[in-house]
Amino acid sequence: MSETKGKVIQCKAAVCWEARKPLTIETVEVAPPRGGEVRVRIAYTGICHSDAHILNGCISAKLPVILGHEAAGIVESVGDGVTNFEEGDHVMLMFLPECNQCRCCTSGKTGCCEVFMDKNYANGLLMDGTSRFTIKGKTLYHFFDTSTFSQYTVVPAISLVKINPAAPMEKVCILSCGIATGYGTAVNTAPVTPGSVCAVWGCGCIGLACIMGCKAAGAARIIGIDINPEKIENAKKFGITEGINPLDYEKPINEVLKEMTNGGLDFTFECVGTTKTMEQAFMSLHKGWGKLCVVGLAPDGDTIKVPPFELLYGRSITGALYGDFRRSKQVPDLVNMYMRGEIMLDEFITHTMPLDRINEAFDLMRDGKR
Amino acid sequence: MSETKGKVIQCKAAVCWEARKPLTIETVEVAPPRGGEVRVRIAYTGICHSDAHILNGCISAKLPVILGHEAAGIVESVGDGVTNFEEGDHVMLMFLPECNQCRCCTSGKTGCCEVFMDKNYANGLLMDGTSRFTIKGKTLYHFFDTSTFSQYTVVPAISLVKINPAAPMEKVCILSCGIATGYGTAVNTAPVTPGSVCAVWGCGCIGLACIMGCKAAGAARIIGIDINPEKIENAKKFGITEGINPLDYEKPINEVLKEMTNGGLDFTFECVGTTKTMEQAFMSLHKGWGKLCVVGLAPDGDTIKVPPFELLYGRSITGALYGDFRRSKQVPDLVNMYMRGEIMLDEFITHTMPLDRINEAFDLMRDGKR
Repeated sequence: MSETKGKVIQCKAAVCWEARKPLTIETVEVAPPRGGEVRVRIAYTGICHSDAHILNGCISAKLPVILGHEAAGIVESVGDGVTNFEEGDHVMLMFLPECNQCRCCTSGKTGCCEVFMDKNYANGLLMDGTSRFTIKGKTLYHFFDTSTFSQYTVVPAISLVKINPAAPMEKVCILSCGIATGYGTAVNTAPVTPGSVCAVWGCGCIGLACIMGCKAAGAARIIGIDINPEKIENAKKFGITEGINPLDYEKPINEVLKEMTNGGLDFTFECVGTTKTMEQAFMSLHKGWGKLCVVGLAPDGDTIKVPPFELLYGRSITGALYGDFRRSKQVPDLVNMYMRGEIMLDEFITHTMPLDRINEAFDLMRDGKR
Repeated sequence: MSETKGKVIQCKAAVCWEARKPLTIETVEVAPPRGGEVRVRIAYTGICHSDAHILNGCISAKLPVILGHEAAGIVESVGDGVTNFEEGDHVMLMFLPECNQCRCCTSGKTGCCEVFMDKNYANGLLMDGTSRFTIKGKTLYHFFDTSTFSQYTVVPAISLVKINPAAPMEKVCILSCGIATGYGTAVNTAPVTPGSVCAVWGCGCIGLACIMGCKAAGAARIIGIDINPEKIENAKKFGITEGINPLDYEKPINEVLKEMTNGGLDFTFECVGTTKTMEQAFMSLHKGWGKLCVVGLAPDGDTIKVPPFELLYGRSITGALYGDFRRSKQVPDLVNMYMRGEIMLDEFITHTMPLDRINEAFDLMRDGKR
């Protein structure tokens, strides 16, 4: 049994005290897990634009907070009533829980979970309304029940998935958010059909994963769209057959795409997170069957403006969280697919750094160097 | 052979000379059909809000025009190259043509036809850029290639469907627009699944047909929404299990519906034609799988404002023209379904009038007395 079980653990964490300020590495206290919770030693975490949204002040959160939601680690100890995890299990942390009991989880129709939809994440607290983090006695808040920018964290058991212990955690950790989100939207949500013509707005991490999904699903053409030529070049190894830069054209990009594709796209994916690009992606659809899948996270309060007559032509719009993957059943499979060489992960990883260089990592992401 | 074949026919028609003025019954000249066209003696026509949009000046059209697009009649003569129709055939007129040759028609994925999408209907002319209607030598314009408010009309053969000659044309004529549109959106576009919970905005003709479709598809609950209590009462015989009047509630109707349905609707149908009700119908959807089907025609230039995060929860939006029915294959079936008592039509018909009382018919429709 872990010698820390039942005790408060002191460890390093990157704390966000204020928006638009660097994170600071602090020594924090992590309380033991309560009923239904698990304490995890984080092995590797990714950084994501959703974390950056808080850092930039675009989305508000209760401060001070420990951010981070994309990670793999090892179970240190479990709270009362947790029977499906034990010390030493290799796990991935999931911002989208899976209770396997609610109307959504048991419907077979969606990867959404009512716990996620009903919970107030804005209060930065776990299910019982308290925090497991303190710094010199002062409460630190949780982020999406994961808070992976810490050496140890406490999460609900329903936010964990057990994975193959032979899997390299420094690679598979990125399956816990962006890669599965982009890949799954193509293979599950759309789902892309063999021979179809697809376009993906944004060739960052999620867009690349989406491109990989379109390719896996047998798309005949995959058009990558980005204003950064280096990202388009890089997207070639993930499966784009063509790349276009909207800055190279005077006319609206939806008109350019309709000409390129004899009437429009079968599937479009918006992986940028602006309503303007979502509207472009809708207007680029082929009439009769074209489907827009929204993947990116737009700023709070923004809306997509859809001319309803364009829907009457038979187009449709949808979206999903976490690529509609069912966590406990499918995430272990994704890990094994990587190990069999069926999906790429190494190619997404541009830098590996220790926790105390996390601000540098965010700078690289903002500069498009990831 | 018809003794009028190859000759100009003089007949009565209701002419729209100016928006916001009554139609006038005039004697007009109808030229013989040219290549690919058919001249039809109209037996019965319905009137529709899309005609009223022109009359009200909400949608502009080339004037003077012969409106009308929902009708049944008998072929008088055919133009060169028309092999699938002959004199005496009983036919329905279709505002949405079906060329059976374009990428859409041959896709098997949509009832849209590229001829419809590519043609400029605003010019009021047939395919060859000319009109078959004159009044005392002056050109009269066509409306959606149908112009059924005339005793005779000329239409492209691809805008006709041959039907069972035993079918009562005074009933089945209404299958040529609203009834098929509403019914088909429920059974084809959604498609409604057995046991599902549905809501329909607007209990006019299209809404009632949509309700009938939800019922046929096996919906467990069908909630009719209208601000006219008489229309809700009437909707009961078409299959609503509950009716609600938004005027009876202070809180937003989407909140009322979510409470009534334990989280929201599986399918919503907007049959009113305003973007405000389309937005309500979207926000009333159950997270994870709810689907909004747009049926109504909103004013030109209006847009539906969709918060993208609500799409990420797995909701979707779509729409269709003419309920996505494939005209030549499925419309004859709809006629036969009526004759076997499998769909209601009589119940939609509130008044039957001669052509010269057409203004009275529009007044009744505007007053909600249809």
